[in-house]
Amino acid sequence: MISTELYQQWDDLSESERVDAFRELPRERADEFFLGLSSRDQVGLLLALPESERRSWLRLLPPDDAADVLQLAPEEERANLAAQLDDVTRREVNALLAYKEDAAGGLMNPRFARVRPDMTIDEAISYLRRQADHLETLHYIYVLDGSQHLLGVLGFRDLFSADRWKLVRDVMRTEFISVSEHTDQEVVARLFSKHHLLAIPVLDGDGRMQGIVTVDDIVEVVEQEASEDIQKVGGMEALDGPYLQMRFWQMVRKRAGWLTILFIGEMLTATAMGHFEEEIERAVVLALFVPLIISSGGNSGSQATTLVIRAMALGELRLRDWWRVVSRELAAGLVLGSVLGAIGMTRIVVWQAFWKTYGEHYVFVGLTVACSLIGVVLFGTIAGSMLPFVLRRMGLDPASASAPFVATLVDVTGLVIYFTIASVILRGTLL
Amino acid sequence: MISTELYQQWDDLSESERVDAFRELPRERADEFFLGLSSRDQVGLLLALPESERRSWLRLLPPDDAADVLQLAPEEERANLAAQLDDVTRREVNALLAYKEDAAGGLMNPRFARVRPDMTIDEAISYLRRQADHLETLHYIYVLDGSQHLLGVLGFRDLFSADRWKLVRDVMRTEFISVSEHTDQEVVARLFSKHHLLAIPVLDGDGRMQGIVTVDDIVEVVEQEASEDIQKVGGMEALDGPYLQMRFWQMVRKRAGWLTILFIGEMLTATAMGHFEEEIERAVVLALFVPLIISSGGNSGSQATTLVIRAMALGELRLRDWWRVVSRELAAGLVLGSVLGAIGMTRIVVWQAFWKTYGEHYVFVGLTVACSLIGVVLFGTIAGSMLPFVLRRMGLDPASASAPFVATLVDVTGLVIYFTIASVILRGTLL
Repeated sequence: MISTELYQQWDDLSESERVDAFRELPRERADEFFLGLSSRDQVGLLLALPESERRSWLRLLPPDDAADVLQLAPEEERANLAAQLDDVTRREVNALLAYKEDAAGGLMNPRFARVRPDMTIDEAISYLRRQADHLETLHYIYVLDGSQHLLGVLGFRDLFSADRWKLVRDVMRTEFISVSEHTDQEVVARLFSKHHLLAIPVLDGDGRMQGIVTVDDIVEVVEQEASEDIQKVGGMEALDGPYLQMRFWQMVRKRAGWLTILFIGEMLTATAMGHFEEEIERAVVLALFVPLIISSGGNSGSQATTLVIRAMALGELRLRDWWRVVSRELAAGLVLGSVLGAIGMTRIVVWQAFWKTYGEHYVFVGLTVACSLIGVVLFGTIAGSMLPFVLRRMGLDPASASAPFVATLVDVTGLVIYFTIASVILRGTLL
Repeated sequence: MISTELYQQWDDLSESERVDAFRELPRERADEFFLGLSSRDQVGLLLALPESERRSWLRLLPPDDAADVLQLAPEEERANLAAQLDDVTRREVNALLAYKEDAAGGLMNPRFARVRPDMTIDEAISYLRRQADHLETLHYIYVLDGSQHLLGVLGFRDLFSADRWKLVRDVMRTEFISVSEHTDQEVVARLFSKHHLLAIPVLDGDGRMQGIVTVDDIVEVVEQEASEDIQKVGGMEALDGPYLQMRFWQMVRKRAGWLTILFIGEMLTATAMGHFEEEIERAVVLALFVPLIISSGGNSGSQATTLVIRAMALGELRLRDWWRVVSRELAAGLVLGSVLGAIGMTRIVVWQAFWKTYGEHYVFVGLTVACSLIGVVLFGTIAGSMLPFVLRRMGLDPASASAPFVATLVDVTGLVIYFTIASVILRGTLL
């Protein structure tokens, strides 16, 4: 079990320790070990090895994994690495690199197990034996006609449990899920998770089979898409790599962009507050509750936007569901706002009873705070839940309606709501 | 391709339309269709069918999927559904239900392809043919000794490309990754995504094989874990189901909990502001920048916490990395704070030049705002990045260090930083 341990230690080893440990493995273990590394670790190891040793390891990789390695390698090393591939694989890799990285074509493996419809089961099994050497793993067996049109699919169970003299065409399943080369990887991932598949065939516009996307690549896709969404929800551009491996300035740039946009938006709060300067001067007590009120709007908005973004990413919500969401969030906002309003009112009454903090008009101050909380929380949930729909309708990524973005929007509006309610309730007493 | 279309329409159909459409499928298509539904949809369909029809569909399911269906069914229907299973499966399902839902044991399928080490390849293939009927899919073939100890693993490629007279023991791989029944599903998911596996064997404490976890179940696990993290980052308890299917009051309760805690925490801002009431009275201009300053701290803290939470979830950061993170975030916080400080200063100078908004001491006001921004953003990034480490050290879920939670923490501290800096810089002028 040497190499299992090595996987576990891998992250803690320096580059030269990795090379040394890898070279100590006997060849057949090293093969398996190399294939089991993530693409990122494969690139790291390849580049750490002397050029003369790279070829044999790189040639172990099936075309889709070789394409991933090339894509992750630094620009200046790509041509060099590609030159180490054999001609057939290099052509396949170049074809794969032409597809968009996040479409089915960019994920697919052009090598798959194929049989003809008029073979017997026994003939199919021996035909597969001859193909096995060129294939990475066998997920399903695809039945193609002479011009590569996909006619049906066989599982191993179908193959192994069928009578050996039957024809493939009589055993194959003709109901199957397929995607085109241009299907987005999120859509592909959803098909996998919904139908518990091991591989999905990729067909071109004429129904000719181009390759398969396999479920093991999809786990990475799902994690990567979730990371992007989480980082966007947290209010920044998605990072492309592990936190500790990002270059410092690149990371700061990705964070500074959104932070600056949010800051400039948030400047409107200073403008809004400026309009109410006189009110604050007359009733300083109003200023005390500004952070409490606007942050409550921000928090409820951030909950709502997160819920809707995630539900959209998982395909649970579509554009036309906006009306059902709005009516739900309207009710939720009223309930949540009332809860917070009641707590806020209680706080003011209790503090007043003990410390006389809020002056003789404390009941009106309390009412102002409570009504503002209902209004602000309601606005927060509605804005937070609808913004992803608006962004999506405009063709943008709904995940950009991040928690901080919604909070900023709600902060400005929240101030206006608060001071407007104050000027109504407190007219004649404090204002 | 009728049933492929039916999958696509499924979400839009009412319960009775689903039953009708399903019944219209010819039996062999209906089998495949039912197996391809998600566990949640399987439960819905089963319960919509009359009791007499449930048995044959339920018996189609392999034990791990049957266990999922039972787990998702309402409490009162479970015994009834379990009674429809055959005795062997019911025993297997009950054993599976005893495991924690989020551990490998709760995910595993107790049926897998097994061969003996002293069989020839040809014997192994015909032995597999006999097993094929009882197996859901064949991922790998496991080589077991007489007492169920796992000795090695065979891929289909190994089996199909090996000389047919060779012994299994000479072809099998003895290096493999395995987990115990109690391994957490997040750890299992990480093994799948790291090593591109189709299935992982589950061994008990003595190395005896209990079942396999398959990659198709892991896609759902990864999505579910990501949803939980995203929802926690958004500041609420994780929902257990699709947004539109959650009961209204259940959803409101899950949101109200965190919102109330955050609200009570945020009340400290009113207390903090109360301490500076005199300063505000003397220099109302200070109040105008309160939302701008505290929200900048909140936004930068939310970025930092999101980054660290996600990196932890993917296993990129461990507890002992905290020092590397702190030094990175210290530098990032200084840079980001300076950027925002410069923009803030510029804004005050420009507004003053045009509208004389901020009085004769505007330079000092600008300096106060700029210095506070640096301090608050720095505090935000440090607090945001360290809080997940603290929570994890205490054995809690780092994802609870949500964006709103960090923002609340930073709001209170931000006010203290701001007014303290103001009292130093503005002493003798405004204060």
